[in-house]
Amino acid sequence: MWPDRRIPDLLGIEHPIIQAPMAGPVFSDMVIAACEAGALGSLPCATIDESRIRAEIGIVRQATDRPFNVNFFCHTPPAFDAAREARWRERLRPYYVELGLDPDMDVPVSNRTPFDDALCALVEEFRPKVVSFHFGLPETALLERVKATGAAVLSSATTVEEAVWLEDHGCDAVIAQGAEAGGHRGNFLTHDMATQIGTFALVPQVADAVKVPVIAAGGITDARGIVAALALGAAAVQIGTAYLYTPEARIAALHRAALRSGRAGETALTNVFTGRPARGILNRVMRETGPLSDDAPAFPLAGGALAPLRAASEKAGSDGFMSLWAGQAARLSREMGAAELTRTLAAEAMARLAGLAGARRDG
Amino acid sequence: MWPDRRIPDLLGIEHPIIQAPMAGPVFSDMVIAACEAGALGSLPCATIDESRIRAEIGIVRQATDRPFNVNFFCHTPPAFDAAREARWRERLRPYYVELGLDPDMDVPVSNRTPFDDALCALVEEFRPKVVSFHFGLPETALLERVKATGAAVLSSATTVEEAVWLEDHGCDAVIAQGAEAGGHRGNFLTHDMATQIGTFALVPQVADAVKVPVIAAGGITDARGIVAALALGAAAVQIGTAYLYTPEARIAALHRAALRSGRAGETALTNVFTGRPARGILNRVMRETGPLSDDAPAFPLAGGALAPLRAASEKAGSDGFMSLWAGQAARLSREMGAAELTRTLAAEAMARLAGLAGARRDG
Repeated sequence: MWPDRRIPDLLGIEHPIIQAPMAGPVFSDMVIAACEAGALGSLPCATIDESRIRAEIGIVRQATDRPFNVNFFCHTPPAFDAAREARWRERLRPYYVELGLDPDMDVPVSNRTPFDDALCALVEEFRPKVVSFHFGLPETALLERVKATGAAVLSSATTVEEAVWLEDHGCDAVIAQGAEAGGHRGNFLTHDMATQIGTFALVPQVADAVKVPVIAAGGITDARGIVAALALGAAAVQIGTAYLYTPEARIAALHRAALRSGRAGETALTNVFTGRPARGILNRVMRETGPLSDDAPAFPLAGGALAPLRAASEKAGSDGFMSLWAGQAARLSREMGAAELTRTLAAEAMARLAGLAGARRDG
Repeated sequence: MWPDRRIPDLLGIEHPIIQAPMAGPVFSDMVIAACEAGALGSLPCATIDESRIRAEIGIVRQATDRPFNVNFFCHTPPAFDAAREARWRERLRPYYVELGLDPDMDVPVSNRTPFDDALCALVEEFRPKVVSFHFGLPETALLERVKATGAAVLSSATTVEEAVWLEDHGCDAVIAQGAEAGGHRGNFLTHDMATQIGTFALVPQVADAVKVPVIAAGGITDARGIVAALALGAAAVQIGTAYLYTPEARIAALHRAALRSGRAGETALTNVFTGRPARGILNRVMRETGPLSDDAPAFPLAGGALAPLRAASEKAGSDGFMSLWAGQAARLSREMGAAELTRTLAAEAMARLAGLAGARRDG
């Protein structure tokens, strides 16, 4: 039915579709819906604590016996840089004043948990079929423990060099994340955003460079994208933004409104929300302090000083200081449940494959 | 044979492939080779004078009776800005000193001829089957004269909004130029490079937004790209970089060497060579003064002060100051003649379509 069975066979799924692990919007209900519809559901664990991860995995396990993916960030937590933090606070000071906040108020420490011994122990306990990482791979000892559970290991590459590195370090498949993708870039060997590569150019070059199957990500929102990714040499696709339009996505009302608006067509890579480049819909803080700023503290610290601005402006009905993650093909999305979306994408992609086939036969 | 006949029928060609009009590298021999192999050959006229255009068209007409495309830039020539020019000379001064040149020497005025009355008269005289423009469209009176010749008119869009504008202003087909493309961006309604869109996301959105057929450009170098572009909703493809690897491409030896090297995988958009953003292989002047610089004079003036640096460094064996135009999929290119390349791409794309079809039937 699908022209390439490598990813369905490797991951034990029906369709070569992975629901992307978007930290923040995705919880167990979306994972279950994607799994039950034949895709690989992915539970993001970077922004929830161990007890919540435990609870979410438990809910998934109760609802489905299908394979799912548990995703972790594996960045190195940064040293606190007081000078850089001060520059960032100074850069944001006028916004604090404008919003009636004390520019010298204490701000929360923005946190994203990197994969560590405790999280690895959770993987060993729950033994998910698939474990994926973002920002490279964890240290060798941890990765070996994950692989010893029998999990298939995935991670994202934004360049050919990163793809080769991931294969060499034990990934069972590589996600080729084109520049169109919403949310955080997975880059880990390069930090130059000027040379990041579009999905169309990245996927075939990665497919040529590695032996493991390639999963295309970035700009894939409808059946046309799925078929195009397969044509480029991908064995499967990872889809994020399209799932933000499902009711299962836990996003702020203002984020959802921006996704529904014409503004969703204008996105950029920005580091102002977290310190690492991520793609979102252009808004005020991106335009005025970025979209890429040398003043933003290292990931994930930049978000701390943004938090009070977001809270105050969101209350006033403005999305000017919140991350509005979205990929470049957001406007191709349709609003439906995550299970229906998954089934629709799979059915339409198969029909489109048949259509190309039919056109070929008629020619 | 091809699933979508709109562009072959509109332009009178066999394969839905357009050899891109790359000003500088492309002359009549490449145009003839592409045409004779069943694609649309394109003669770029922006950097040659009227007598040379006349001669090149004459050679094409002698060699083939197949349709071809004549391409023009339609930018508005900038007013000379003495202050900006001075800033640019100052910015480049250390390089002049390093290369033993007088930093205050006279420099050539970089020139690109925009489409005007005289060039329009040439179109009326030669009546090419296809006329394409870059940077929007010429003023209405000129465009109407072109259309009155019966020529099909094409131009490039880098956003959905530009595509709609081009359709509304009379284009018979729209080239959706994704951010992966080598050479100059065709942008004309937006000048924000942070929001430029990858081919994968741009093509389906443009296909949804316009009624005229869409020609995909950017990152299309092999059969996988051609089939993927068709899957995304394009009726045809425009291919540039792959033709730079043919012996017909008139490029500097150092440019060819860079294309053949691993460096071809690392490109960026830069305005330092001409004043408008264009994609090329990263080199010294891009890294050190850009890749995008507010100091670069408006198109095409930035190139003037670069010319002596290029000449002196090229003589010394360095490509550090020359434009090394290339798209993001350059490394997928193969070296063969332009006719063989055209036939190979067409045959391989048809085989790949059949392969997807076969996989579908076997499923």
